[in-house]
Amino acid sequence: MTGRRSEVREPQQDRSRATRQRLLESTIELLAVHGWAGSTVAEVAEHAGVSRGAAQHHYPTREDLITGALEYMFDGRMTELRGGAAEIGAGPSRTLHVVQGVVDHFTGNLFKAALQVWTAAAADEQLRARIVPLEAKFGRHAHRTTIEMLGADDADPVVHTLVQATLDMARGLGLADVLTDDSARRERIVRQWADTLHTALDSAGAGRSRP
Amino acid sequence: MTGRRSEVREPQQDRSRATRQRLLESTIELLAVHGWAGSTVAEVAEHAGVSRGAAQHHYPTREDLITGALEYMFDGRMTELRGGAAEIGAGPSRTLHVVQGVVDHFTGNLFKAALQVWTAAAADEQLRARIVPLEAKFGRHAHRTTIEMLGADDADPVVHTLVQATLDMARGLGLADVLTDDSARRERIVRQWADTLHTALDSAGAGRSRP
Repeated sequence: MTGRRSEVREPQQDRSRATRQRLLESTIELLAVHGWAGSTVAEVAEHAGVSRGAAQHHYPTREDLITGALEYMFDGRMTELRGGAAEIGAGPSRTLHVVQGVVDHFTGNLFKAALQVWTAAAADEQLRARIVPLEAKFGRHAHRTTIEMLGADDADPVVHTLVQATLDMARGLGLADVLTDDSARRERIVRQWADTLHTALDSAGAGRSRP
Repeated sequence: MTGRRSEVREPQQDRSRATRQRLLESTIELLAVHGWAGSTVAEVAEHAGVSRGAAQHHYPTREDLITGALEYMFDGRMTELRGGAAEIGAGPSRTLHVVQGVVDHFTGNLFKAALQVWTAAAADEQLRARIVPLEAKFGRHAHRTTIEMLGADDADPVVHTLVQATLDMARGLGLADVLTDDSARRERIVRQWADTLHTALDSAGAGRSRP
């Protein structure tokens, strides 16, 4: 009997997981393309091909859906970033690869969706209370991932601050790409910054712990 | 008679200018504090203590009012920035002063207001068509002002790109300050960035043209 029950439960769990995934991916896409006003629960459910009732079963409020989507996509991007970094060697090409990966992270649909949420949260106390701790977590996670990818020593205050600055610059480059395709200008900045960062990290003595 | 007409006209021109100024300042304040949805022409007119009819006389559409406000405030900020730079000397303290000034520019109400407009424009073709050329103009103007303040040689591609990167980082720091007070972290980044930028500009040979 236990066997039969788990056979029945498994496919339903798979279906639920697939439904949630479609809802989360639709949320990010609609936020990025149609903005805050164009991504209500009803619109997300329709885009995902899910009934509104089913959407609300999984995510009772719009805030639940949006924070769930940001978290799901962020975790996925960080895993991808880490995976890509494992393949590369050491030296300046590694720094360039890491800066490029971090900047790519801030110029995709996830960033464009998050920007819509942050901007809405700036004038919405209730949403802000949900987003601020999530943002802090994303910030810490992105910092730790970048440090690991660089093989740098975060205990060195210069290294710590330069990696923070790199993430801030990547965020600024993301913002510059929202209304127009900024990729040509961005490529020059990524190359120059990777070069400057590599020199600065080396002279900070971070080179000692880098492979 | 000409004399009398100009006497009558002058105070009216002054009143019109004062009305426009109140409308433009109210637009920036409402956008920064209440967001895109909370800054319609009616709300701006009420905040400015101007009738809706008078507001529409000066700015026929919401887009006219918003682009007018961004332009007016941006020009004012650039003039302030330049004025501040005239008082300082040379060397690393000058670079720090310039980086600080640029970052301050991106963390005030003007940036917060502009962020609301960019984010709305991302999902609004008509608004985007008005904002993109304005943004390009602001970008060129901010770059030129920063180069002048640094006394740097923009013809050097390394200098040009590092100044661009500085503006991108400042924009990213502005975004990090929208939901929480990020000033303590920002101060460390500004100091480190100024230091790294100064070293990089010097080794790019930009030192030759700097006072």
